[in-house]
Amino acid sequence: MSITTPRALWTCYERVRARQPLVHNITNFVVMNNSANTLLAAGASPAMVHATDEVEEFGALIDALVINVGTLDSRNAASMRAAATLAKQRGTPWVLDPVAAGITRFRRGLCDDLMRIGPDAVRGNASEILTLASDGGTHGKGADATDPVEAAEHGAIALAAERRCTVAVTGAVDLVTDGTRRLRLANGDPMMARVTGLGCCATALVGAVLAVEPDAMIATAAALAAFAVAGELAAEHAAGPGSLQVGLLDTLYGLDERAFLDRVQLS
Amino acid sequence: MSITTPRALWTCYERVRARQPLVHNITNFVVMNNSANTLLAAGASPAMVHATDEVEEFGALIDALVINVGTLDSRNAASMRAAATLAKQRGTPWVLDPVAAGITRFRRGLCDDLMRIGPDAVRGNASEILTLASDGGTHGKGADATDPVEAAEHGAIALAAERRCTVAVTGAVDLVTDGTRRLRLANGDPMMARVTGLGCCATALVGAVLAVEPDAMIATAAALAAFAVAGELAAEHAAGPGSLQVGLLDTLYGLDERAFLDRVQLS
Amino acid sequence: MSITTPRALWTCYERVRARQPLVHNITNFVVMNNSANTLLAAGASPAMVHATDEVEEFGALIDALVINVGTLDSRNAASMRAAATLAKQRGTPWVLDPVAAGITRFRRGLCDDLMRIGPDAVRGNASEILTLASDGGTHGKGADATDPVEAAEHGAIALAAERRCTVAVTGAVDLVTDGTRRLRLANGDPMMARVTGLGCCATALVGAVLAVEPDAMIATAAALAAFAVAGELAAEHAAGPGSLQVGLLDTLYGLDERAFLDRVQLS
Repeated sequence: MSITTPRALWTCYERVRARQPLVHNITNFVVMNNSANTLLAAGASPAMVHATDEVEEFGALIDALVINVGTLDSRNAASMRAAATLAKQRGTPWVLDPVAAGITRFRRGLCDDLMRIGPDAVRGNASEILTLASDGGTHGKGADATDPVEAAEHGAIALAAERRCTVAVTGAVDLVTDGTRRLRLANGDPMMARVTGLGCCATALVGAVLAVEPDAMIATAAALAAFAVAGELAAEHAAGPGSLQVGLLDTLYGLDERAFLDRVQLS
Repeated sequence: MSITTPRALWTCYERVRARQPLVHNITNFVVMNNSANTLLAAGASPAMVHATDEVEEFGALIDALVINVGTLDSRNAASMRAAATLAKQRGTPWVLDPVAAGITRFRRGLCDDLMRIGPDAVRGNASEILTLASDGGTHGKGADATDPVEAAEHGAIALAAERRCTVAVTGAVDLVTDGTRRLRLANGDPMMARVTGLGCCATALVGAVLAVEPDAMIATAAALAAFAVAGELAAEHAAGPGSLQVGLLDTLYGLDERAFLDRVQLS
Repeated sequence: MSITTPRALWTCYERVRARQPLVHNITNFVVMNNSANTLLAAGASPAMVHATDEVEEFGALIDALVINVGTLDSRNAASMRAAATLAKQRGTPWVLDPVAAGITRFRRGLCDDLMRIGPDAVRGNASEILTLASDGGTHGKGADATDPVEAAEHGAIALAAERRCTVAVTGAVDLVTDGTRRLRLANGDPMMARVTGLGCCATALVGAVLAVEPDAMIATAAALAAFAVAGELAAEHAAGPGSLQVGLLDTLYGLDERAFLDRVQLS
């Protein structure tokens, strides 16, 4: 069964350029700059606002919300809870990036709370998704994946079904599932793991596409596919991770349908 | 009437390289890195210090202060008020970047307070300046300008006259006014809007030039002109916003009088 | 007396690629992104975690700790004290970057406290090391060095002897000492001072090598040598500080023994 087509993913992704959604990010300090640049390169309008004094009022203006727990503390955790709750009430789509979810109880607890509030989509590496899907075990060291995507497949499907959301596990081959449907994307380049926060940037892009596409699974797949294709193309001309980061933004900015369709590996 | 000349702006800007002023930035987390890099590329000495425990003591050492409200919270808001008040008392020049001033009451209130303390210069996009100039309306979505520069011209002049400061509205053609005098700068490139925080970086550079030039309007114009010329030159060789960011720093670092005079469009 | 050889430094440095140590950074907001990218380019696994709710639990998982006081506040100061104390108890190697140590009493006090807890290594510019070594005087303006390395030599040796740690003073020629032994490294490029946070990135790399080499002085020298050689090579092809930053990451990623041995200037 074919859930979608490369062309449909492109059409969905390209809508970001036309509509320029305002994407609110409560994200980690490491990736604020390149997340904003990713969204700008894709044609969206990023905003990084994390004060508890601001998130509720700002929540009325936004088209999508991205929550990333990378550099958590008690204050931004409170903002994340408030913003996610409001997004759910208002019907604003939102995506969670459970960075290094398993490394502490504090982080694990927040991620579980956010999952209960109910994101439209979650994107993580296999270790992070396994942590969310499991009943208490922890996985991974820091933000790096130590488990293969395959190891998280059952967990991802169960998590998606339980939480009624889209779950994406990214790695050599990305898996996207809503608990029933599944698709795989086989783009990207191993050097991307040597640039900090590219997973976080991919999540930010999922937020942008969620703002313009009601089917969260299609939106998630479209964003991940565009990002991975851009990364793969950029890696061909990169001398290392420094130029890969720069080239990825350039490539995403200029990405066109032909390049996307030539490259995307969807199954 | 000619207020200034391209050559005078260059002479003013170049003084930053000779004097290497220490520019204190209380700025947002998205742009800390590229603001510091902008100041270093221009020959200034940046310092990012925002703890309430530090800003007063540090205020005695600095040559200029840059306040940018991009990622506001109650704590850095307190530091901003303290640092601005001290700068005013000491006669240290300071510049305000009222990022997304209109998006929440909290942010609007802080920006109004800072305007009352009295910056030497304010730089914002049309929406931000309209917010500061208006009696309660809000403009813009996030940090992006949605109003054209022209729409903010009367507001900018009134604000400058009321607060006795220089107001710069940046966009396709920048307007700089002190409430009486006006000048326009027509450099830059549309792709610059696709790199996060270049407006913030321009504001940081205004801070550096304020440290070496007592006429705040000339200092502001000199900084904005140098930055926009560097951006315009870099855009000619940029494959997209990633390489534009990199090239802008390179170009600013190597900018010379001839390239500046060849390009600057002042009226 | 030859303490070490270029080949020994390379062997030590290269172990980072094989072992991929998890390096915990409590670092400043300006350099989080490029510190993480430096560690990734070198083959290490970075984690930026600074919440007081997390640092103790996370401390059990890490291979090394990097503490950088660049953008201090009362909360991350508490996390730094807790993390350093735990690292000392557990025998986890840790390195301190006393950014702008002398600019305020608050900062000076924290740096002195951290020195008493006992890092394995400290890396700073001459002004910072002089501040730590002196009995109350302050040096430097912001993060820039204003004293030459030579001026800090006696202070560095005394500090290393008193605190029983390795002290590195970086500048035109780096000095590394453990209070008894001394070595000098003469690589790098003046343009590196025009990129923000390269000193901080070098410190992060010291953390990575401390995780794989028990002799802290050798580890420190190996990290500083690799970083400076990469910077020097990158500077040859850089058009300015923007491309230098990018090229440095590319070069560090691809650095091999031959290039290292051809360049390193150890004495």
